[in-house]
Amino acid sequence: MPLVGFGIWKVPRETCADQVYNAIKLGYRHIDGAWDYTNSAEAGKGVQRAIAEGIVKREELFIVSKLWNNYHKREHAFEMAKLENEAWGVGYLDLFLIHFPIAQEFIPFDKLRWPCFWSDKEQTKVTPLAKVPIAETWKALEDMVQTKENPDGFVKSIGVSNFHPQLLYDLLSYARIQPSVLQIEHHPYLTQPVLIKMAQENNIAVTGYSTFGPQSFIEMNHAGALKAKPLFEVDAVTSIAAKHGKSPGQVLLRWCTQRNIIVIPKSNSVERLKQNLESSTFDLTKEEIEQISALNLGLRFNIPPINIFA
Amino acid sequence: MPLVGFGIWKVPRETCADQVYNAIKLGYRHIDGAWDYTNSAEAGKGVQRAIAEGIVKREELFIVSKLWNNYHKREHAFEMAKLENEAWGVGYLDLFLIHFPIAQEFIPFDKLRWPCFWSDKEQTKVTPLAKVPIAETWKALEDMVQTKENPDGFVKSIGVSNFHPQLLYDLLSYARIQPSVLQIEHHPYLTQPVLIKMAQENNIAVTGYSTFGPQSFIEMNHAGALKAKPLFEVDAVTSIAAKHGKSPGQVLLRWCTQRNIIVIPKSNSVERLKQNLESSTFDLTKEEIEQISALNLGLRFNIPPINIFA
Repeated sequence: MPLVGFGIWKVPRETCADQVYNAIKLGYRHIDGAWDYTNSAEAGKGVQRAIAEGIVKREELFIVSKLWNNYHKREHAFEMAKLENEAWGVGYLDLFLIHFPIAQEFIPFDKLRWPCFWSDKEQTKVTPLAKVPIAETWKALEDMVQTKENPDGFVKSIGVSNFHPQLLYDLLSYARIQPSVLQIEHHPYLTQPVLIKMAQENNIAVTGYSTFGPQSFIEMNHAGALKAKPLFEVDAVTSIAAKHGKSPGQVLLRWCTQRNIIVIPKSNSVERLKQNLESSTFDLTKEEIEQISALNLGLRFNIPPINIFA
Repeated sequence: MPLVGFGIWKVPRETCADQVYNAIKLGYRHIDGAWDYTNSAEAGKGVQRAIAEGIVKREELFIVSKLWNNYHKREHAFEMAKLENEAWGVGYLDLFLIHFPIAQEFIPFDKLRWPCFWSDKEQTKVTPLAKVPIAETWKALEDMVQTKENPDGFVKSIGVSNFHPQLLYDLLSYARIQPSVLQIEHHPYLTQPVLIKMAQENNIAVTGYSTFGPQSFIEMNHAGALKAKPLFEVDAVTSIAAKHGKSPGQVLLRWCTQRNIIVIPKSNSVERLKQNLESSTFDLTKEEIEQISALNLGLRFNIPPINIFA
């Protein structure tokens, strides 16, 4: 699983195929998508083109997708995963995650609306919860994994996202197939060291999203993100960047990857895509890593209408 | 369930029977104990004496105990709950809680050591985790509840302690009997409004422990508690106390009970026991409540060796 991936959250459908194709051309081998991002079919087209042109082989790529809240029931999870796999159109998914540890009422697949189904479009009414234990959803994911006993499996590995240690400990107590990956919000304003240590000690790889902190949320007019000081302008980050002759973004990414945290930055600029991919070519000192970690405020930006992060 | 109870964590065995007896004489009707406090038999003696002397009837009392981490497996949960019920010796328990949402390896009942089984005595080696899903433990607790179908049940209601919303949502998705109570650390330095709202909206009563914040942990030489400013000396608390002619402790308790949060303060002084019990005879203004809530620092004192609160 390549340490630097290309995350396609908020990549518009119109440009997604080209952006993914170009990312692969630049050297990206890990694409992080989700049903919720509603651009998997377009991303798949970009991947297929890159394979068709011989830029990359399928087995060199690591394709990630995620199960949305409304599809936690076994039969819905299977239907959604199959649709998602067909949308990507490259035979199988390398990793499939439970996107959030909360089940909401089923919404038929033909009634897709964006951004997602946490609530109605106006965000006035939260979609009611559904009584689906995580154990049922996890069992469904386990049964999607391709093994000798399950040659029809169309998923190579499975994991979770946005899980708290308590639920992760519980999952570990009954999982037949252990989660390979935990994906969480992770940046200098929200470092979550205990959660990360717990996951890594249990051989669960950690992927951090929103590595640049408020940056990812500003385009959504997120009040908290607009108030927070951009990480690209924080002294600790800019001074370390200057010392190494790197960009602040590269420093933030290296702060993660040097601690074995996988990153999935997005960018619309080819220059920055390159910079992000090349962010592992230098090393921060232990002190520099600690200096950045000390920026922690416990400041979370991705707080959904059903707040599962209290 | 009386809003003000007497919590017997750290009440020494030697004095526990008398302290519980005296608390009941003073008017306490709710006693909060736990297997882990290792004083249930003594507390039970105090209760039995109060009943024998006609001070109180069994049905007027509300007795709480809790299941410890090493006994999460169905058969161990049952054995422990029965031992605990026998220790109290008054026929049944009113409420039985899962003390922490983490299962550790079983330790035979005759090998009890204090303070508890998080680790060995020297706290150098944490007791390994056991693979027991919360669902198994909860099912065991459900089967202890006395109902028409289960007349042998020796527990009137069940609940959980130290649970995070994610695990609570999951529990609610499969529980046959819903948890009646969530017990959590709650004081002005750790207010946890989202967790409390979530529980109360789901008809789960919230009990707050360590209402006086660092106070409960100072006698344990807790580094964080020794550093924190005592809540009894914080301006917002003392000025509100002076205005109402009450003690700071009474203000802190009322700050909870007025928001329907049950409290279980401990005291070795008869005077303070009285004050605590009488803390619901005045009302704080909305602004005063908010002023105290604004002291929140997210500062948790009860962090066990397996940190499940990240």
